Amino acid sequence: MNAFDRLIAAALDEDLGTTGDVTSLAVIDANLRGRARFLSKDHLVLSGLEAAAGVFHAVDPGVRITWSRGEGSVVEKGEVFGEVEGAARSLLTAERPALNLLQRLSGIATLTRQAVEALGSGKTRLLDTRKTTPGLRALEKAAVRAGGGLNHRMGLFDGVMIKDNHIAACGSITQAIRRARAYVHPLMKVECEVTDLAGLDEAIAAGADMVLLDNMDDALLAEAVERTAGRVKLEASGNMSLERLPRVAAAGVDFVSMGALTHSARAVDISLEMDPFAP
Amino acid sequence: MNAFDRLIAAALDEDLGTTGDVTSLAVIDANLRGRARFLSKDHLVLSGLEAAAGVFHAVDPGVRITWSRGEGSVVEKGEVFGEVEGAARSLLTAERPALNLLQRLSGIATLTRQAVEALGSGKTRLLDTRKTTPGLRALEKAAVRAGGGLNHRMGLFDGVMIKDNHIAACGSITQAIRRARAYVHPLMKVECEVTDLAGLDEAIAAGADMVLLDNMDDALLAEAVERTAGRVKLEASGNMSLERLPRVAAAGVDFVSMGALTHSARAVDISLEMDPFAP
Amino acid sequence: MNAFDRLIAAALDEDLGTTGDVTSLAVIDANLRGRARFLSKDHLVLSGLEAAAGVFHAVDPGVRITWSRGEGSVVEKGEVFGEVEGAARSLLTAERPALNLLQRLSGIATLTRQAVEALGSGKTRLLDTRKTTPGLRALEKAAVRAGGGLNHRMGLFDGVMIKDNHIAACGSITQAIRRARAYVHPLMKVECEVTDLAGLDEAIAAGADMVLLDNMDDALLAEAVERTAGRVKLEASGNMSLERLPRVAAAGVDFVSMGALTHSARAVDISLEMDPFAP
Amino acid sequence: MNAFDRLIAAALDEDLGTTGDVTSLAVIDANLRGRARFLSKDHLVLSGLEAAAGVFHAVDPGVRITWSRGEGSVVEKGEVFGEVEGAARSLLTAERPALNLLQRLSGIATLTRQAVEALGSGKTRLLDTRKTTPGLRALEKAAVRAGGGLNHRMGLFDGVMIKDNHIAACGSITQAIRRARAYVHPLMKVECEVTDLAGLDEAIAAGADMVLLDNMDDALLAEAVERTAGRVKLEASGNMSLERLPRVAAAGVDFVSMGALTHSARAVDISLEMDPFAP
Amino acid sequence: MNAFDRLIAAALDEDLGTTGDVTSLAVIDANLRGRARFLSKDHLVLSGLEAAAGVFHAVDPGVRITWSRGEGSVVEKGEVFGEVEGAARSLLTAERPALNLLQRLSGIATLTRQAVEALGSGKTRLLDTRKTTPGLRALEKAAVRAGGGLNHRMGLFDGVMIKDNHIAACGSITQAIRRARAYVHPLMKVECEVTDLAGLDEAIAAGADMVLLDNMDDALLAEAVERTAGRVKLEASGNMSLERLPRVAAAGVDFVSMGALTHSARAVDISLEMDPFAP
Amino acid sequence: MNAFDRLIAAALDEDLGTTGDVTSLAVIDANLRGRARFLSKDHLVLSGLEAAAGVFHAVDPGVRITWSRGEGSVVEKGEVFGEVEGAARSLLTAERPALNLLQRLSGIATLTRQAVEALGSGKTRLLDTRKTTPGLRALEKAAVRAGGGLNHRMGLFDGVMIKDNHIAACGSITQAIRRARAYVHPLMKVECEVTDLAGLDEAIAAGADMVLLDNMDDALLAEAVERTAGRVKLEASGNMSLERLPRVAAAGVDFVSMGALTHSARAVDISLEMDPFAP
Repeated sequence: MNAFDRLIAAALDEDLGTTGDVTSLAVIDANLRGRARFLSKDHLVLSGLEAAAGVFHAVDPGVRITWSRGEGSVVEKGEVFGEVEGAARSLLTAERPALNLLQRLSGIATLTRQAVEALGSGKTRLLDTRKTTPGLRALEKAAVRAGGGLNHRMGLFDGVMIKDNHIAACGSITQAIRRARAYVHPLMKVECEVTDLAGLDEAIAAGADMVLLDNMDDALLAEAVERTAGRVKLEASGNMSLERLPRVAAAGVDFVSMGALTHSARAVDISLEMDPFAP
Repeated sequence: MNAFDRLIAAALDEDLGTTGDVTSLAVIDANLRGRARFLSKDHLVLSGLEAAAGVFHAVDPGVRITWSRGEGSVVEKGEVFGEVEGAARSLLTAERPALNLLQRLSGIATLTRQAVEALGSGKTRLLDTRKTTPGLRALEKAAVRAGGGLNHRMGLFDGVMIKDNHIAACGSITQAIRRARAYVHPLMKVECEVTDLAGLDEAIAAGADMVLLDNMDDALLAEAVERTAGRVKLEASGNMSLERLPRVAAAGVDFVSMGALTHSARAVDISLEMDPFAP
Repeated sequence: MNAFDRLIAAALDEDLGTTGDVTSLAVIDANLRGRARFLSKDHLVLSGLEAAAGVFHAVDPGVRITWSRGEGSVVEKGEVFGEVEGAARSLLTAERPALNLLQRLSGIATLTRQAVEALGSGKTRLLDTRKTTPGLRALEKAAVRAGGGLNHRMGLFDGVMIKDNHIAACGSITQAIRRARAYVHPLMKVECEVTDLAGLDEAIAAGADMVLLDNMDDALLAEAVERTAGRVKLEASGNMSLERLPRVAAAGVDFVSMGALTHSARAVDISLEMDPFAP
Repeated sequence: MNAFDRLIAAALDEDLGTTGDVTSLAVIDANLRGRARFLSKDHLVLSGLEAAAGVFHAVDPGVRITWSRGEGSVVEKGEVFGEVEGAARSLLTAERPALNLLQRLSGIATLTRQAVEALGSGKTRLLDTRKTTPGLRALEKAAVRAGGGLNHRMGLFDGVMIKDNHIAACGSITQAIRRARAYVHPLMKVECEVTDLAGLDEAIAAGADMVLLDNMDDALLAEAVERTAGRVKLEASGNMSLERLPRVAAAGVDFVSMGALTHSARAVDISLEMDPFAP
Repeated sequence: MNAFDRLIAAALDEDLGTTGDVTSLAVIDANLRGRARFLSKDHLVLSGLEAAAGVFHAVDPGVRITWSRGEGSVVEKGEVFGEVEGAARSLLTAERPALNLLQRLSGIATLTRQAVEALGSGKTRLLDTRKTTPGLRALEKAAVRAGGGLNHRMGLFDGVMIKDNHIAACGSITQAIRRARAYVHPLMKVECEVTDLAGLDEAIAAGADMVLLDNMDDALLAEAVERTAGRVKLEASGNMSLERLPRVAAAGVDFVSMGALTHSARAVDISLEMDPFAP
Repeated sequence: MNAFDRLIAAALDEDLGTTGDVTSLAVIDANLRGRARFLSKDHLVLSGLEAAAGVFHAVDPGVRITWSRGEGSVVEKGEVFGEVEGAARSLLTAERPALNLLQRLSGIATLTRQAVEALGSGKTRLLDTRKTTPGLRALEKAAVRAGGGLNHRMGLFDGVMIKDNHIAACGSITQAIRRARAYVHPLMKVECEVTDLAGLDEAIAAGADMVLLDNMDDALLAEAVERTAGRVKLEASGNMSLERLPRVAAAGVDFVSMGALTHSARAVDISLEMDPFAP
């Protein structure tokens, strides 16, 4: 079972236990069929369609789902963007965990879109972070892509990011970068976090491929960009907000990363409107 | 493996893959040890201590953790509330997934505390909902308890909640409640959602143990309370906000439930401050 | 994988290992097909049809199964109640674990039906207990339903049952019931076990929803019923036998629970009669 | 996770769900400790000690268990044969699934002992069958050993047993045995089921290592023994009862197999007597 | 999930992680379809067709596979023996793990065929050992069968093999064989390893079913065969090579076992030739 | 359970089934203890120490293991490099799967060391490939490191490798590299396979970070190195042998990759010499 299937299994297991949906089992005839529409109750960017479909199909492979809008689409309040049809019990049982995923992931995509728009049309691109919900990393990173952002590394395994503690343990930025370079396979890059321009200089000299400028103000970011002159990629991080993003873009960094995209997006409001069942 | 262990395994699997934390493997000596303190950077109510500890211990059973503040404690910005000590690599590897859990769960506890305080000292109690993050239900519901709220049913398996679609499928509130009563085991109660006072009357007459008053305004809630006169428990739900809660409490319902507690709490800010490693 | 699939996987794993059914692999041609009928060799109440089908389908999704009698049906000795058709190897491999489930579960349903008939047509209903075979709880509780019994709580998670040790730990029935009431969610009831009438009085006064009368004789049960006068539900338990059940029903309790339904039912005799294979 | 751990996990999962033992969580203080004794309420042969211990340790590795009587011991009604000590919550939570295993497995051992005694001190040995509870095969076969029986093959994977359908598919006993012999590895024997003396003659001539005499009466069994004159091992099966076993032994077969040992043994009565908890 | 599915899942998990095949995701259109042919680049005996197909189907159940040559076929360098057709991404993603299995297993089958041919047409048969790749035992033993060899026992569970350490622990060959005979079920044989003729005599006298002649030279093997005169089966093992096998066969043993079949076979060369994709 | 634990569980499961090591259970007393030494019977480079220890500890956590030589050490024929001590049954049961891992992994490390030595002390470094045994990738790649080689990417997830089919699907090398660059996260490099110098030129111009020179002869490799002049890293692959490696190194490429390191290394000979058990 892959990570996606495990997540859906966990979502259903915690909601159904070994007993199942007692309400639906009690009051809904096993043969009753139903149809329902996904209705947006917010202005939102859609994400999580495959995950929501996965919940319905894990409950009942016979449920039929059709999406009229795709991953990454902007959907207005009041718009219908999909439909499910199948056994009434299955629709009722899968409804809540499917919506829980869809609302959270679309919330992330929607916030990402706002941040991308705040950055404007310059060269600065928006990155996510590892501050994701445990178990949902791949889905939340896909939601960032749906909203127009780029992904940073997926985890600790596919990129080197040297932080203050790594540097302290090695004695210097130079030493940390050298150790990393000697260790990693030839298709993996090395990024180093710095907090001032001296660190930036040292990281570039030691051969970093990319430098994270941590918690620098706009002026310092601009100075870092000028000093670097394109020798390495620059990522700004720390204290980002939608309001500040235009100024960070103006400073000319290659990337801005924002943890809030995934750790503090609010769920958007989506409901599943069932056609009245015939008794 | 139980649900808690599975969640932690999933969190580590998506962050470490089969390769591990390449940065720490590359630059941190395997024998180096470290110590770090959990520092609150917000006014918050703590939750997720056991989950955070579980992450550290899953990475390395030899890490030692001591909490100076307990689950449900109020912690002020700038306060240290715990400490970890162990192999430096293990601390660095576990840091992010542990903080991801702690920040999210403490965010939920903090929002819950605000809502509990908004309700005041009357009889109205705060309930959570099933609008939780897939895979984190038990932890998020524990965070609600840490914040002073009560849990509603844990899932579809341990309580009957009859909603509009169930009623439509049965033809009437009365019929739905009767079917439910006949089906469930003798220690399970039956709650029915209603949208008006006629529904309330019918639900009580049909033998509901508890009634959910859906999307009613404050005046209607008060009227429902008066009419019910304690015959069943009453839960108000829909369109709740911190601002409105005092008025809902004044209406005299037994319970208020808020999905936002779990689906839209913002992560609070917590950092893990490492003592400088000796190179 | 849910609990049902896990059970079937365990049953096949212990019977097949990684080697498989060496006899059928050795002597049965892979292309040979067969057909077989399920034959009852006892008077019985059927249960476990879905489980038996699950075994065949786990061995080979291409096996076709048709049941001519449904779950809960009374089947006489010599009657055929179903048929399987498919690869001869698959039928031979699945036969024993499928029959093991069918015989055990139908044995439970059959004993349950006898107990229900012994209770007669009054208000007293038959409940099962948690004395089930590890791993088979859901199936055995479904067999009790197939036989006409009701289920008690499914496990420790969906109902409160306060027993002697809980009471001792709290100091009194009253204190135990108060603690339970304060802890549980609003849709869960509280049952308390008592051994005498003073305990019954205390449990009712403390707010129990249901009381288990443990090991009381028929006269005491009747006295408890009279004293309670419908204020709470009453369950009689301990030393039940088919012979005694009419007297317990006459005492007027709401429920009787019997562990023997699941822990001591004898397997009924069912065989799978294969049509002669063409060599 | 091996089969034993999976069974215990399944037993706890179906009893605890993701919520746990709500009664003990509600009314028992987390720090309260307790002690309890395993008390036999029947004359029985003990089996399942390791399984019962496994349940307690899966709930709480800190529970301490000491057995005063060993696997296979005869224990009289009223005797104590073991003790557990640990957190009161853990003892209460593990009690029922541990007893469910112990009562069932000791029931099998007890019935096996009766059958072994019925066979007497001659050469005929008692075998079990594959008619075991799904998921419990290894434990139930160990219970048969505890009761003094021998195990037959553990599953379809470690011995060849040619039955009527295999013979039909091959055209003859001779052909079936030849195919089996050519297929199996050199350390595996081939047994063939026969229903008459002609079949016995053919099986021996074709090179069977062992022959199962199916549903033969005592006289025919004796004739088969005489005719075989020790050339192969003989197993009698079908319609066995404690009453008949002495006659089957007198017929002189090497083995008798009885499905009832595992599919129809009654659970014996064992209780876990807790010392009164201090409130 | 059975052992076969677990192996394929492990192979894909270690190759894809939670991120997937980034190259194909990046550069291959999701709708592009492709076709490819399995091309042998060695003279080889085919094995692993089902395993290779399992990899493709685990990646994408929609891939269609047709084999023009079967398991155990001799395929010449330059011959095509199968074809896959499906989504281009799926073919590219599954290619390497499928080939890894096919090349290794066909390598084993090819070496086995050489050894079988070296033994010649006499009575001596070739056996494998337990020196297989962890996790691939069943597949590697099937490859030995595909190459014309026989399997020895599958593992420690389905046959008794008494070695020097067992003998030392028991005090004598006789004692070890007696203990084994008393323990094992009636369809399992007992083999004993010996290093000289005295050991052979003792093993036969003690009732071994089969004797392994360990590290004996050709002359000693011949003497052992003569002395045994067919009373038990004889297996020669140790220091086997393709060159020596004819002499071992000439010595007249029943079986020769070679660990090198599975632990040191070289992978044969097989490629998957894709038709050029249309851009 | 992580990949390492899953592999060990699979190795034990296929060897032990649900029955266990019947020989040791039958003939070795449960209380007997033993001690054994790992003895090298080849000149070898050690790898797999942790894996072998993992097998012993999975069988019995009480086994004590001490290694006198470390991962990557050269061990001569006849040298002892470690010792195990514990229950005799546990040592005998774990012996074969532990040795299977140790012999295979040390075989890979030994072959790698030979290849590294053949490359000499120049700048050319040895890389492994994805041609590993399914389920053993991480262990086999660690064995390559133990032998002095470098790892290439761990799987399809942590590096981009554009091959002929990807290029065909995109229409050109340029287009494929552009698509890859746009897709991957900022810490992942892009490598492109080329078969001639025109391809090399195009790949460099399109922005590849590294180029794989596929199946080029020594002269062409040297020309590619000269032409590239250090602008990108160069990897030579295809038709490598120990004999050819010095010439490839002389051509001046940065890396050579060899599939044979993992797919065709012969197992080295290692035995576990037990001290004679006292009977």
